Amino acid sequence: MSSALAPPEFSSRERPALVNGVPQAVVSVHDRGLQYGDGLFETLRCEQGRVRWFERHLARLGAGCARLRIPMPDGALLRREAESLIDGHSRALVKLVLTRGVAGGRGYRPSGDEQATRILTVHPWPAAGSPEFRVALSPVALACNRLLAGLKHLNRLEQVLAQQAAAAAGVDEVLMCSPSGQVISGSMSNLFVVQGGALVTPPLEEGGVAGIMRSLVLDLAPQVGIAVRIQPLSRQDLEAAPALFVTNVRLGVQAVHWYEGRRLHPDACGLRLQELIDRAEA
Amino acid sequence: MSSALAPPEFSSRERPALVNGVPQAVVSVHDRGLQYGDGLFETLRCEQGRVRWFERHLARLGAGCARLRIPMPDGALLRREAESLIDGHSRALVKLVLTRGVAGGRGYRPSGDEQATRILTVHPWPAAGSPEFRVALSPVALACNRLLAGLKHLNRLEQVLAQQAAAAAGVDEVLMCSPSGQVISGSMSNLFVVQGGALVTPPLEEGGVAGIMRSLVLDLAPQVGIAVRIQPLSRQDLEAAPALFVTNVRLGVQAVHWYEGRRLHPDACGLRLQELIDRAEA
Repeated sequence: MSSALAPPEFSSRERPALVNGVPQAVVSVHDRGLQYGDGLFETLRCEQGRVRWFERHLARLGAGCARLRIPMPDGALLRREAESLIDGHSRALVKLVLTRGVAGGRGYRPSGDEQATRILTVHPWPAAGSPEFRVALSPVALACNRLLAGLKHLNRLEQVLAQQAAAAAGVDEVLMCSPSGQVISGSMSNLFVVQGGALVTPPLEEGGVAGIMRSLVLDLAPQVGIAVRIQPLSRQDLEAAPALFVTNVRLGVQAVHWYEGRRLHPDACGLRLQELIDRAEA
Repeated sequence: MSSALAPPEFSSRERPALVNGVPQAVVSVHDRGLQYGDGLFETLRCEQGRVRWFERHLARLGAGCARLRIPMPDGALLRREAESLIDGHSRALVKLVLTRGVAGGRGYRPSGDEQATRILTVHPWPAAGSPEFRVALSPVALACNRLLAGLKHLNRLEQVLAQQAAAAAGVDEVLMCSPSGQVISGSMSNLFVVQGGALVTPPLEEGGVAGIMRSLVLDLAPQVGIAVRIQPLSRQDLEAAPALFVTNVRLGVQAVHWYEGRRLHPDACGLRLQELIDRAEA
Protein backbone atom coordinates (compact mmCIF):
# COMPACT_ATOMS: atom_id res chain seq x y z
CA MET A 1 0.00 0.00 0.00
CA SER A 2 1.49 3.33 -0.96
CA SER A 3 1.41 6.09 1.63
CA ALA A 4 -0.61 8.19 -0.81
CA LEU A 5 -3.54 5.85 -0.11
CA ALA A 6 -3.32 6.18 3.66
CA PRO A 7 -6.32 7.76 5.33
CA PRO A 8 -5.56 10.90 7.34
CA GLU A 9 -5.94 9.52 10.84
CA PHE A 10 -3.70 6.47 10.36
CA SER A 11 -0.43 6.30 8.51
CA SER A 12 0.09 3.40 6.13
CA ARG A 13 2.70 1.98 8.49
CA GLU A 14 0.41 1.80 11.47
CA ARG A 15 -2.78 0.02 10.70
CA PRO A 16 -3.17 -1.55 14.11
CA ALA A 17 -4.24 -5.17 14.14
CA LEU A 18 -4.55 -7.98 16.66
CA VAL A 19 -4.43 -11.68 15.78
CA ASN A 20 -5.52 -13.89 18.66
CA GLY A 21 -4.71 -11.02 20.97
CA VAL A 22 -1.19 -10.49 19.63
CA PRO A 23 -0.35 -7.20 17.89
CA GLN A 24 0.50 -8.41 14.41
CA ALA A 25 -0.84 -7.80 10.92
CA VAL A 26 -0.32 -11.22 9.33
CA VAL A 27 -1.99 -14.62 9.42
CA SER A 28 -0.88 -18.08 8.30
CA VAL A 29 -1.32 -18.86 4.60
CA HIS A 30 -2.90 -22.10 5.85
CA ASP A 31 -5.70 -20.25 7.63
CA ARG A 32 -9.04 -21.57 6.39
CA GLY A 33 -10.35 -18.02 6.29
CA LEU A 34 -8.00 -17.37 3.38
CA GLN A 35 -8.18 -20.82 1.82
CA TYR A 36 -12.00 -21.15 1.75
CA GLY A 37 -13.57 -18.01 3.24
CA ASP A 38 -14.31 -20.33 6.15
CA GLY A 39 -15.29 -17.77 8.74
CA LEU A 40 -17.40 -14.79 9.75
CA PHE A 41 -17.00 -11.09 10.33
CA GLU A 42 -18.48 -8.13 12.14
CA THR A 43 -17.98 -4.44 11.45
CA LEU A 44 -18.09 -2.61 14.78
CA ARG A 45 -18.88 1.07 15.12
CA CYS A 46 -16.78 2.54 17.90
CA GLU A 47 -17.41 5.88 19.55
CA GLN A 48 -15.70 7.45 22.58
CA GLY A 49 -13.73 4.28 23.21
CA ARG A 50 -16.77 1.97 23.21
CA VAL A 51 -18.20 -0.51 20.71
CA ARG A 52 -21.81 0.41 19.94
CA TRP A 53 -24.53 -2.27 20.07
CA PHE A 54 -21.95 -4.88 20.99
CA GLU A 55 -24.46 -7.46 22.27
CA ARG A 56 -26.22 -7.49 18.91
CA HIS A 57 -22.94 -8.14 17.12
CA LEU A 58 -22.12 -10.89 19.57
CA ALA A 59 -25.51 -12.54 19.07
CA ARG A 60 -25.11 -12.58 15.28
CA LEU A 61 -21.54 -13.87 15.52
CA GLY A 62 -22.70 -16.58 17.90
CA ALA A 63 -25.47 -17.63 15.52
CA GLY A 64 -22.92 -17.83 12.70
CA CYS A 65 -20.52 -19.89 14.82
CA ALA A 66 -23.32 -22.30 15.69
CA ARG A 67 -24.31 -22.66 12.03
CA LEU A 68 -20.73 -23.20 10.79
CA ARG A 69 -19.66 -25.10 13.91
CA ILE A 70 -16.81 -22.74 14.74
CA PRO A 71 -16.12 -22.39 18.48
CA MET A 72 -17.39 -19.00 19.67
CA PRO A 73 -14.76 -16.93 21.49
CA ASP A 74 -15.49 -15.26 24.79
CA GLY A 75 -17.53 -12.10 24.22
CA ALA A 76 -15.85 -10.08 26.95
CA LEU A 77 -12.46 -10.91 25.43
CA LEU A 78 -13.62 -9.74 21.99
CA ARG A 79 -14.92 -6.50 23.44
CA ARG A 80 -11.70 -5.87 25.35
CA GLU A 81 -9.60 -6.52 22.26
CA ALA A 82 -11.75 -4.27 20.08
CA GLU A 83 -11.70 -1.45 22.60
CA SER A 84 -7.94 -1.74 23.07
CA LEU A 85 -7.53 -0.90 19.37
CA ILE A 86 -9.57 2.29 19.39
CA ASP A 87 -7.94 3.98 22.33
CA GLY A 88 -7.53 7.63 21.42
CA HIS A 89 -9.91 7.66 18.46
CA SER A 90 -13.19 9.46 18.97
CA ARG A 91 -14.82 7.43 16.21
CA ALA A 92 -13.55 4.45 14.22
CA LEU A 93 -14.58 1.12 12.74
CA VAL A 94 -13.16 -2.13 14.04
CA LYS A 95 -13.47 -5.13 11.79
CA LEU A 96 -13.53 -8.47 13.55
CA VAL A 97 -12.83 -11.53 11.39
CA LEU A 98 -13.28 -14.94 12.99
CA THR A 99 -12.07 -17.93 11.00
CA ARG A 100 -12.12 -21.65 11.66
CA GLY A 101 -8.35 -21.37 12.04
CA VAL A 102 -5.29 -22.96 10.52
CA ALA A 103 -5.87 -26.14 8.56
CA GLY A 104 -4.03 -29.21 9.79
CA GLY A 105 -4.22 -30.81 6.36
CA ARG A 106 -5.57 -30.06 2.91
CA GLY A 107 -9.16 -30.08 1.73
CA TYR A 108 -12.55 -28.64 2.61
CA ARG A 109 -13.33 -31.10 5.39
CA PRO A 110 -12.52 -29.58 8.80
CA SER A 111 -10.57 -31.88 11.09
CA GLY A 112 -12.51 -30.59 14.08
CA ASP A 113 -9.23 -29.86 15.84
CA GLU A 114 -8.83 -26.34 14.42
CA GLN A 115 -8.41 -23.41 16.79
CA ALA A 116 -10.45 -20.42 15.63
CA THR A 117 -8.44 -17.35 14.58
CA ARG A 118 -9.72 -13.93 15.63
CA ILE A 119 -8.42 -10.97 13.67
CA LEU A 120 -9.21 -7.40 14.61
CA THR A 121 -8.29 -4.41 12.49
CA VAL A 122 -9.10 -0.76 13.06
CA HIS A 123 -10.12 1.62 10.31
CA PRO A 124 -10.54 5.39 10.39
CA TRP A 125 -14.06 6.69 10.25
CA PRO A 126 -14.70 7.28 6.54
CA ALA A 127 -14.91 10.82 5.24
CA ALA A 128 -18.46 11.90 4.40
CA GLY A 129 -19.44 10.88 0.88
CA SER A 130 -21.25 12.96 -1.68
CA PRO A 131 -24.35 14.65 -0.22
CA GLU A 132 -26.44 12.81 -2.80
CA PHE A 133 -26.65 9.06 -2.10
CA ARG A 134 -27.21 7.25 -5.38
CA VAL A 135 -28.47 3.70 -5.73
CA ALA A 136 -28.97 1.42 -8.73
CA LEU A 137 -30.10 -2.14 -9.30
CA SER A 138 -27.16 -4.56 -9.29
CA PRO A 139 -26.42 -6.52 -12.45
CA VAL A 140 -24.94 -9.13 -10.08
CA ALA A 141 -27.50 -11.45 -8.51
CA LEU A 142 -27.29 -12.82 -5.00
CA ALA A 143 -27.06 -16.61 -5.09
CA CYS A 144 -29.11 -17.92 -2.21
CA ASN A 145 -28.41 -20.74 0.20
CA ARG A 146 -30.68 -21.02 3.23
CA LEU A 147 -27.85 -22.54 5.28
CA LEU A 148 -25.83 -19.34 4.92
CA ALA A 149 -28.67 -16.80 4.80
CA GLY A 150 -28.47 -14.06 7.40
CA LEU A 151 -24.84 -14.77 8.29
CA LYS A 152 -22.05 -12.24 7.82
CA HIS A 153 -19.65 -14.85 6.46
CA LEU A 154 -16.44 -14.38 4.53
CA ASN A 155 -17.71 -15.51 1.09
CA ARG A 156 -18.21 -12.06 -0.40
CA LEU A 157 -17.22 -12.31 -4.05
CA GLU A 158 -20.71 -11.41 -5.25
CA GLN A 159 -20.57 -8.23 -3.20
CA VAL A 160 -17.12 -7.43 -4.65
CA LEU A 161 -18.48 -7.87 -8.18
CA ALA A 162 -21.56 -5.82 -7.30
CA GLN A 163 -19.40 -3.00 -5.97
CA GLN A 164 -17.24 -3.12 -9.11
CA ALA A 165 -20.47 -2.61 -11.04
CA ALA A 166 -21.52 0.19 -8.68
CA ALA A 167 -18.21 1.96 -9.26
CA ALA A 168 -18.63 1.63 -13.03
CA ALA A 169 -22.15 3.05 -12.78
CA GLY A 170 -21.07 5.92 -10.55
CA VAL A 171 -23.40 5.01 -7.70
CA ASP A 172 -22.82 4.50 -3.99
CA GLU A 173 -24.76 1.29 -3.57
CA VAL A 174 -26.49 -1.38 -5.66
CA LEU A 175 -29.50 -3.50 -4.69
CA MET A 176 -29.16 -7.23 -5.22
CA CYS A 177 -31.91 -9.66 -6.22
CA SER A 178 -32.28 -13.36 -5.52
CA PRO A 179 -32.42 -15.76 -8.48
CA SER A 180 -36.22 -15.65 -8.19
CA GLY A 181 -36.17 -11.87 -8.66
CA GLN A 182 -36.90 -10.74 -5.11
CA VAL A 183 -34.92 -7.72 -3.95
CA ILE A 184 -32.93 -8.88 -0.92
CA SER A 185 -30.54 -6.11 0.12
CA GLY A 186 -27.80 -3.74 -0.92
CA SER A 187 -24.32 -5.10 -1.50
CA MET A 188 -23.18 -3.62 1.83
CA SER A 189 -26.48 -2.62 3.43
CA ASN A 190 -30.03 -3.65 4.18
CA LEU A 191 -32.99 -2.03 2.47
CA PHE A 192 -36.11 -0.32 3.80
CA VAL A 193 -38.86 0.89 1.50
CA VAL A 194 -41.62 3.30 2.45
CA GLN A 195 -44.91 1.68 1.51
CA GLY A 196 -48.29 3.03 2.58
CA GLY A 197 -46.68 5.05 5.36
CA ALA A 198 -44.90 2.00 6.79
CA LEU A 199 -41.32 0.77 6.44
CA VAL A 200 -40.89 -2.55 4.67
CA THR A 201 -37.71 -4.64 4.57
CA PRO A 202 -37.25 -7.98 2.77
CA PRO A 203 -37.08 -11.29 4.64
CA LEU A 204 -33.64 -12.89 4.82
CA GLU A 205 -34.50 -16.58 4.92
CA GLU A 206 -33.13 -17.11 1.41
CA GLY A 207 -30.05 -14.89 1.47
CA GLY A 208 -28.57 -11.61 2.60
CA VAL A 209 -27.09 -10.49 5.90
CA ALA A 210 -29.13 -9.85 9.04
CA GLY A 211 -27.74 -6.35 9.63
CA ILE A 212 -27.33 -4.81 13.05
CA MET A 213 -28.79 -1.50 11.89
CA ARG A 214 -31.71 -3.43 10.34
CA SER A 215 -32.39 -5.10 13.68
CA LEU A 216 -32.26 -1.71 15.43
CA VAL A 217 -34.78 -0.24 12.99
CA LEU A 218 -37.07 -3.25 13.40
CA ASP A 219 -36.90 -3.03 17.19
CA LEU A 220 -37.05 0.74 17.65
CA ALA A 221 -39.34 2.06 14.90
CA PRO A 222 -42.56 1.01 16.70
CA GLN A 223 -41.42 3.06 19.75
CA VAL A 224 -41.84 6.26 17.75
CA GLY A 225 -45.01 5.15 16.03
CA ILE A 226 -43.41 4.05 12.78
CA ALA A 227 -44.92 0.81 11.50
CA VAL A 228 -42.35 -1.60 10.14
CA ARG A 229 -42.77 -5.03 8.60
CA ILE A 230 -40.80 -7.78 6.90
CA GLN A 231 -42.23 -8.60 3.51
CA PRO A 232 -40.89 -9.67 0.10
CA LEU A 233 -40.14 -6.79 -2.25
CA SER A 234 -40.00 -6.78 -6.04
CA ARG A 235 -38.32 -4.31 -8.36
CA GLN A 236 -41.75 -2.87 -9.06
CA ASP A 237 -42.20 -2.15 -5.35
CA LEU A 238 -38.99 -0.13 -5.46
CA GLU A 239 -40.10 1.82 -8.49
CA ALA A 240 -43.39 2.66 -6.79
CA ALA A 241 -41.89 3.64 -3.43
CA PRO A 242 -41.91 7.33 -2.44
CA ALA A 243 -38.76 6.86 -0.32
CA LEU A 244 -35.98 4.29 0.19
CA PHE A 245 -33.41 3.86 2.93
CA VAL A 246 -30.34 1.65 3.16
CA THR A 247 -28.83 0.78 6.52
CA ASN A 248 -25.55 -0.41 7.96
CA VAL A 249 -23.57 0.51 11.09
CA ARG A 250 -21.41 2.94 9.16
CA LEU A 251 -24.14 4.73 7.19
CA GLY A 252 -26.84 4.46 9.84
CA VAL A 253 -30.27 5.04 8.28
CA GLN A 254 -29.17 6.44 4.94
CA ALA A 255 -31.80 8.13 2.79
CA VAL A 256 -31.56 7.31 -0.91
CA HIS A 257 -31.60 10.48 -3.01
CA TRP A 258 -31.48 8.90 -6.43
CA TYR A 259 -32.66 5.47 -7.51
CA GLU A 260 -32.29 4.28 -11.11
CA GLY A 261 -32.71 7.75 -12.58
CA ARG A 262 -35.47 8.86 -10.23
CA ARG A 263 -34.92 11.57 -7.62
CA LEU A 264 -36.35 10.71 -4.20
CA HIS A 265 -37.23 12.91 -1.25
CA PRO A 266 -36.11 11.51 2.08
CA ASP A 267 -39.01 10.60 4.31
CA ALA A 268 -38.92 12.30 7.71
CA CYS A 269 -39.04 8.93 9.47
CA GLY A 270 -35.37 8.42 8.57
CA LEU A 271 -34.16 11.26 10.79
CA ARG A 272 -36.46 10.28 13.65
CA LEU A 273 -35.13 6.73 13.50
CA GLN A 274 -31.54 7.87 13.29
CA GLU A 275 -31.92 10.01 16.43
CA LEU A 276 -33.46 7.09 18.29
CA ILE A 277 -30.72 4.68 17.15
CA ASP A 278 -27.96 7.14 18.02
CA ARG A 279 -29.22 7.07 21.60
CA ALA A 280 -29.80 3.30 21.75
CA GLU A 281 -27.45 1.52 24.10
CA ALA A 282 -28.24 -2.05 23.02
CA MET B 1 -0.90 -28.06 14.04
CA SER B 2 0.39 -30.82 16.27
CA SER B 3 3.21 -32.96 14.98
CA ALA B 4 0.96 -36.00 15.37
CA LEU B 5 -1.04 -34.66 12.42
CA ALA B 6 1.99 -34.14 10.24
CA PRO B 7 2.06 -36.22 7.10
CA PRO B 8 5.06 -38.51 6.77
CA GLU B 9 6.91 -36.69 4.02
CA PHE B 10 6.78 -33.21 5.61
CA SER B 11 7.31 -32.29 9.22
CA SER B 12 4.86 -29.88 10.78
CA ARG B 13 7.57 -27.26 10.99
CA GLU B 14 8.36 -27.27 7.33
CA ARG B 15 5.30 -26.71 5.23
CA PRO B 16 7.05 -24.83 2.47
CA ALA B 17 5.24 -21.80 1.10
CA LEU B 18 5.97 -18.90 -1.22
CA VAL B 19 4.17 -15.56 -1.12
CA ASN B 20 4.90 -13.42 -4.16
CA GLY B 21 8.04 -15.47 -4.65
CA VAL B 22 9.31 -14.99 -1.10
CA PRO B 23 9.63 -18.04 1.16
CA GLN B 24 7.16 -17.17 3.93
CA ALA B 25 4.02 -18.71 5.32
CA VAL B 26 2.03 -15.60 6.24
CA VAL B 27 -0.03 -12.97 4.44
CA SER B 28 -1.33 -9.56 5.46
CA VAL B 29 -4.57 -9.55 7.46
CA HIS B 30 -5.65 -6.86 4.98
CA ASP B 31 -5.40 -9.24 2.03
CA ARG B 32 -8.72 -9.30 0.19
CA GLY B 33 -8.40 -13.07 -0.16
CA LEU B 34 -8.93 -13.34 3.59
CA GLN B 35 -11.33 -10.41 3.95
CA TYR B 36 -13.74 -11.40 1.15
CA GLY B 37 -12.55 -14.60 -0.51
CA ASP B 38 -11.62 -12.25 -3.33
CA GLY B 39 -9.44 -14.56 -5.37
CA LEU B 40 -8.96 -17.88 -7.14
CA PHE B 41 -7.08 -21.11 -6.65
CA GLU B 42 -5.65 -24.08 -8.49
CA THR B 43 -4.63 -27.45 -7.11
CA LEU B 44 -1.65 -28.68 -9.11
CA ARG B 45 -0.64 -32.30 -9.35
CA CYS B 46 3.13 -32.55 -9.42
CA GLU B 47 5.09 -35.63 -10.47
CA GLN B 48 8.81 -36.05 -10.96
CA GLY B 49 9.40 -32.36 -10.41
CA ARG B 50 6.85 -31.21 -13.00
CA VAL B 51 3.35 -29.77 -12.79
CA ARG B 52 0.96 -31.94 -14.78
CA TRP B 53 -1.45 -30.34 -17.28
CA PHE B 54 -0.14 -26.90 -16.41
CA GLU B 55 -1.53 -25.13 -19.48
CA ARG B 56 -5.04 -26.20 -18.55
CA HIS B 57 -4.64 -24.78 -15.05
CA LEU B 58 -3.26 -21.58 -16.48
CA ALA B 59 -6.18 -21.22 -18.90
CA ARG B 60 -8.74 -21.64 -16.11
CA LEU B 61 -6.88 -19.23 -13.85
CA GLY B 62 -6.71 -16.72 -16.69
CA ALA B 63 -10.45 -17.03 -17.31
CA GLY B 64 -11.06 -16.43 -13.61
CA CYS B 65 -8.78 -13.40 -13.55
CA ALA B 66 -10.60 -11.94 -16.54
CA ARG B 67 -13.99 -12.50 -14.91
CA LEU B 68 -12.96 -10.99 -11.55
CA ARG B 69 -10.65 -8.39 -13.11
CA ILE B 70 -7.58 -9.51 -11.20
CA PRO B 71 -4.31 -9.05 -13.12
CA MET B 72 -3.07 -12.44 -14.33
CA PRO B 73 0.50 -13.22 -13.27
CA ASP B 74 3.05 -14.51 -15.75
CA GLY B 75 2.48 -18.22 -16.39
CA ALA B 76 6.16 -19.13 -16.64
CA LEU B 77 6.77 -17.47 -13.27
CA LEU B 78 3.95 -19.46 -11.67
CA ARG B 79 5.31 -22.68 -13.10
CA ARG B 80 8.84 -21.92 -11.88
CA GLU B 81 7.58 -21.07 -8.40
CA ALA B 82 5.44 -24.21 -8.20
CA GLU B 83 8.27 -26.44 -9.41
CA SER B 84 10.75 -24.85 -7.01
CA LEU B 85 8.57 -26.07 -4.13
CA ILE B 86 8.42 -29.71 -5.16
CA ASP B 87 12.09 -30.27 -5.66
CA GLY B 88 12.92 -33.68 -4.23
CA HIS B 89 9.34 -34.95 -4.01
CA SER B 90 8.33 -37.64 -6.45
CA ARG B 91 4.67 -36.71 -6.13
CA ALA B 92 2.97 -33.82 -4.34
CA LEU B 93 0.16 -31.30 -4.61
CA VAL B 94 0.89 -27.60 -4.93
CA LYS B 95 -1.95 -25.26 -4.13
CA LEU B 96 -1.79 -21.89 -5.83
CA VAL B 97 -3.98 -19.15 -4.37
CA LEU B 98 -4.20 -15.88 -6.27
CA THR B 99 -5.94 -13.00 -4.51
CA ARG B 100 -6.71 -9.45 -5.56
CA GLY B 101 -4.11 -8.41 -2.99
CA VAL B 102 -3.93 -6.14 0.01
CA ALA B 103 -6.79 -3.67 0.39
CA GLY B 104 -5.83 -0.03 0.46
CA GLY B 105 -8.98 0.90 2.32
CA ARG B 106 -12.05 -0.79 3.75
CA GLY B 107 -15.05 -2.14 1.88
CA TYR B 108 -15.94 -4.47 -0.96
CA ARG B 109 -15.15 -2.03 -3.75
CA PRO B 110 -11.66 -2.65 -5.18
CA SER B 111 -9.58 0.49 -5.61
CA GLY B 112 -8.13 -0.90 -8.83
CA ASP B 113 -4.64 -0.22 -7.46
CA GLU B 114 -4.27 -3.57 -5.69
CA GLN B 115 -1.33 -5.80 -6.50
CA ALA B 116 -2.39 -9.44 -6.77
CA THR B 117 -0.97 -11.79 -4.12
CA ARG B 118 0.18 -15.23 -5.24
CA ILE B 119 0.49 -17.86 -2.53
CA LEU B 120 1.90 -21.31 -3.21
CA THR B 121 1.87 -24.11 -0.67
CA VAL B 122 3.02 -27.68 -1.09
CA HIS B 123 1.19 -30.67 0.34
CA PRO B 124 2.27 -34.30 0.54
CA TRP B 125 0.51 -36.72 -1.75
CA PRO B 126 -2.41 -38.03 0.32
CA ALA B 127 -2.30 -41.59 1.56
CA ALA B 128 -4.65 -43.91 -0.34
CA GLY B 129 -8.16 -43.82 1.11
CA SER B 130 -10.43 -46.76 1.79
CA PRO B 131 -10.65 -49.14 -1.19
CA GLU B 132 -14.39 -48.51 -1.28
CA PHE B 133 -15.24 -44.98 -2.44
CA ARG B 134 -18.59 -43.99 -0.97
CA VAL B 135 -20.76 -41.14 -2.21
CA ALA B 136 -24.01 -39.64 -0.95
CA LEU B 137 -26.30 -36.79 -1.95
CA SER B 138 -25.35 -33.57 -0.16
CA PRO B 139 -27.88 -31.99 2.18
CA VAL B 140 -26.12 -28.70 1.30
CA ALA B 141 -27.25 -27.14 -1.97
CA LEU B 142 -25.01 -25.26 -4.35
CA ALA B 143 -26.19 -21.66 -4.69
CA CYS B 144 -25.72 -20.68 -8.31
CA ASN B 145 -24.46 -17.46 -9.83
CA ARG B 146 -23.67 -17.48 -13.53
CA LEU B 147 -20.99 -14.82 -13.03
CA LEU B 148 -19.01 -17.19 -10.82
CA ALA B 149 -19.94 -20.51 -12.44
CA GLY B 150 -16.99 -22.59 -13.60
CA LEU B 151 -14.43 -20.60 -11.63
CA LYS B 152 -12.30 -22.09 -8.89
CA HIS B 153 -12.75 -19.09 -6.62
CA LEU B 154 -12.10 -18.74 -2.90
CA ASN B 155 -15.74 -18.65 -1.74
CA ARG B 156 -16.00 -22.25 -0.59
CA LEU B 157 -18.17 -22.25 2.51
CA GLU B 158 -20.82 -24.42 0.87
CA GLN B 159 -18.17 -27.02 0.11
CA VAL B 160 -16.94 -26.86 3.71
CA LEU B 161 -20.48 -27.43 4.99
CA ALA B 162 -20.98 -30.22 2.45
CA GLN B 163 -17.79 -31.94 3.59
CA GLN B 164 -18.85 -31.59 7.24
CA ALA B 165 -22.01 -33.44 6.22
CA ALA B 166 -19.97 -36.03 4.30
CA ALA B 167 -17.86 -36.68 7.39
CA ALA B 168 -20.97 -37.08 9.53
CA ALA B 169 -22.41 -39.52 6.99
CA GLY B 170 -19.18 -41.49 6.75
CA VAL B 171 -18.78 -40.99 3.01
CA ASP B 172 -15.88 -39.76 0.90
CA GLU B 173 -17.78 -37.34 -1.27
CA VAL B 174 -21.22 -35.76 -1.58
CA LEU B 175 -23.00 -34.64 -4.74
CA MET B 176 -24.42 -31.12 -4.72
CA CYS B 177 -27.58 -29.92 -6.46
CA SER B 178 -28.52 -26.49 -7.75
CA PRO B 179 -31.57 -24.76 -6.26
CA SER B 180 -33.57 -26.08 -9.23
CA GLY B 181 -32.62 -29.66 -8.29
CA GLN B 182 -30.08 -30.41 -11.02
CA VAL B 183 -27.06 -32.39 -9.86
CA ILE B 184 -24.04 -30.17 -10.59
CA SER B 185 -20.93 -31.81 -9.10
CA GLY B 186 -19.30 -33.26 -6.04
CA SER B 187 -18.12 -30.93 -3.30
CA MET B 188 -14.51 -31.41 -4.44
CA SER B 189 -14.96 -33.19 -7.75
CA ASN B 190 -16.84 -33.30 -11.02
CA LEU B 191 -19.31 -36.04 -11.82
CA PHE B 192 -19.61 -38.47 -14.73
CA VAL B 193 -22.53 -40.86 -15.05
CA VAL B 194 -22.65 -43.88 -17.35
CA GLN B 195 -25.85 -43.61 -19.37
CA GLY B 196 -26.60 -45.82 -22.37
CA GLY B 197 -22.94 -46.74 -22.72
CA ALA B 198 -21.84 -43.08 -22.83
CA LEU B 199 -20.40 -40.81 -20.15
CA VAL B 200 -22.54 -37.84 -19.18
CA THR B 201 -21.43 -34.85 -17.07
CA PRO B 202 -23.59 -31.88 -16.06
CA PRO B 203 -23.20 -28.45 -17.68
CA LEU B 204 -21.57 -25.79 -15.50
CA GLU B 205 -23.24 -22.62 -16.77
CA GLU B 206 -25.17 -22.22 -13.52
CA GLY B 207 -22.58 -23.27 -10.98
CA GLY B 208 -19.78 -25.66 -10.13
CA VAL B 209 -16.09 -25.69 -11.03
CA ALA B 210 -14.79 -26.48 -14.51
CA GLY B 211 -12.38 -29.19 -13.34
CA ILE B 212 -9.10 -29.96 -15.08
CA MET B 213 -9.73 -33.71 -14.89
CA ARG B 214 -13.24 -33.13 -16.30
CA SER B 215 -11.73 -31.29 -19.27
CA LEU B 216 -9.24 -34.12 -19.81
CA VAL B 217 -12.05 -36.69 -19.82
CA LEU B 218 -14.11 -34.58 -22.24
CA ASP B 219 -11.14 -34.17 -24.58
CA LEU B 220 -9.64 -37.65 -24.42
CA ALA B 221 -12.58 -40.06 -24.10
CA PRO B 222 -13.50 -39.90 -27.80
CA GLN B 223 -9.92 -40.95 -28.65
CA VAL B 224 -10.57 -44.37 -27.13
CA GLY B 225 -14.07 -44.66 -28.49
CA ILE B 226 -15.88 -43.59 -25.36
CA ALA B 227 -18.78 -41.27 -26.12
CA VAL B 228 -19.07 -38.36 -23.71
CA ARG B 229 -21.60 -35.56 -23.53
CA ILE B 230 -22.58 -32.59 -21.38
CA GLN B 231 -26.18 -32.83 -20.30
CA PRO B 232 -28.27 -31.93 -17.23
CA LEU B 233 -28.60 -34.72 -14.70
CA SER B 234 -31.28 -35.26 -12.09
CA ARG B 235 -31.15 -37.34 -8.93
CA GLN B 236 -33.24 -39.95 -10.75
CA ASP B 237 -30.53 -40.19 -13.44
CA LEU B 238 -28.04 -41.01 -10.70
CA GLU B 239 -30.29 -43.66 -9.22
CA ALA B 240 -30.68 -45.28 -12.62
CA ALA B 241 -27.01 -45.18 -13.60
CA PRO B 242 -25.08 -48.47 -13.72
CA ALA B 243 -21.82 -46.65 -12.87
CA LEU B 244 -20.65 -43.27 -11.55
CA PHE B 245 -17.26 -41.59 -11.54
CA VAL B 246 -16.01 -38.50 -9.76
CA THR B 247 -12.94 -36.67 -11.01
CA ASN B 248 -10.33 -34.24 -9.74
CA VAL B 249 -6.57 -33.98 -10.21
CA ARG B 250 -5.90 -35.82 -6.97
CA LEU B 251 -8.37 -38.68 -7.43
CA GLY B 252 -8.11 -38.91 -11.20
CA VAL B 253 -11.08 -40.83 -12.60
CA GLN B 254 -12.42 -42.30 -9.37
CA ALA B 255 -15.01 -45.06 -9.63
CA VAL B 256 -17.85 -44.78 -7.13
CA HIS B 257 -18.36 -48.08 -5.29
CA TRP B 258 -21.33 -47.10 -3.17
CA TYR B 259 -23.95 -44.45 -3.84
CA GLU B 260 -26.77 -43.77 -1.38
CA GLY B 261 -26.92 -47.37 -0.19
CA ARG B 262 -26.48 -48.95 -3.61
CA ARG B 263 -23.35 -50.90 -4.51
CA LEU B 264 -21.97 -50.04 -7.96
CA HIS B 265 -19.61 -51.93 -10.21
CA PRO B 266 -16.96 -49.74 -11.80
CA ASP B 267 -17.33 -49.50 -15.54
CA ALA B 268 -14.21 -50.54 -17.46
CA CYS B 269 -14.10 -47.18 -19.23
CA GLY B 270 -12.76 -45.63 -16.02
CA LEU B 271 -9.48 -47.53 -16.15
CA ARG B 272 -9.07 -46.94 -19.88
CA LEU B 273 -9.55 -43.22 -19.36
CA GLN B 274 -7.20 -43.13 -16.41
CA GLU B 275 -4.42 -44.75 -18.43
CA LEU B 276 -4.94 -42.27 -21.23
CA ILE B 277 -4.95 -39.30 -18.86
CA ASP B 278 -1.87 -40.54 -17.02
CA ARG B 279 0.01 -40.34 -20.31
CA ALA B 280 -1.48 -37.00 -21.43
CA GLU B 281 1.05 -34.20 -21.53
CA ALA B 282 -1.37 -31.31 -21.96
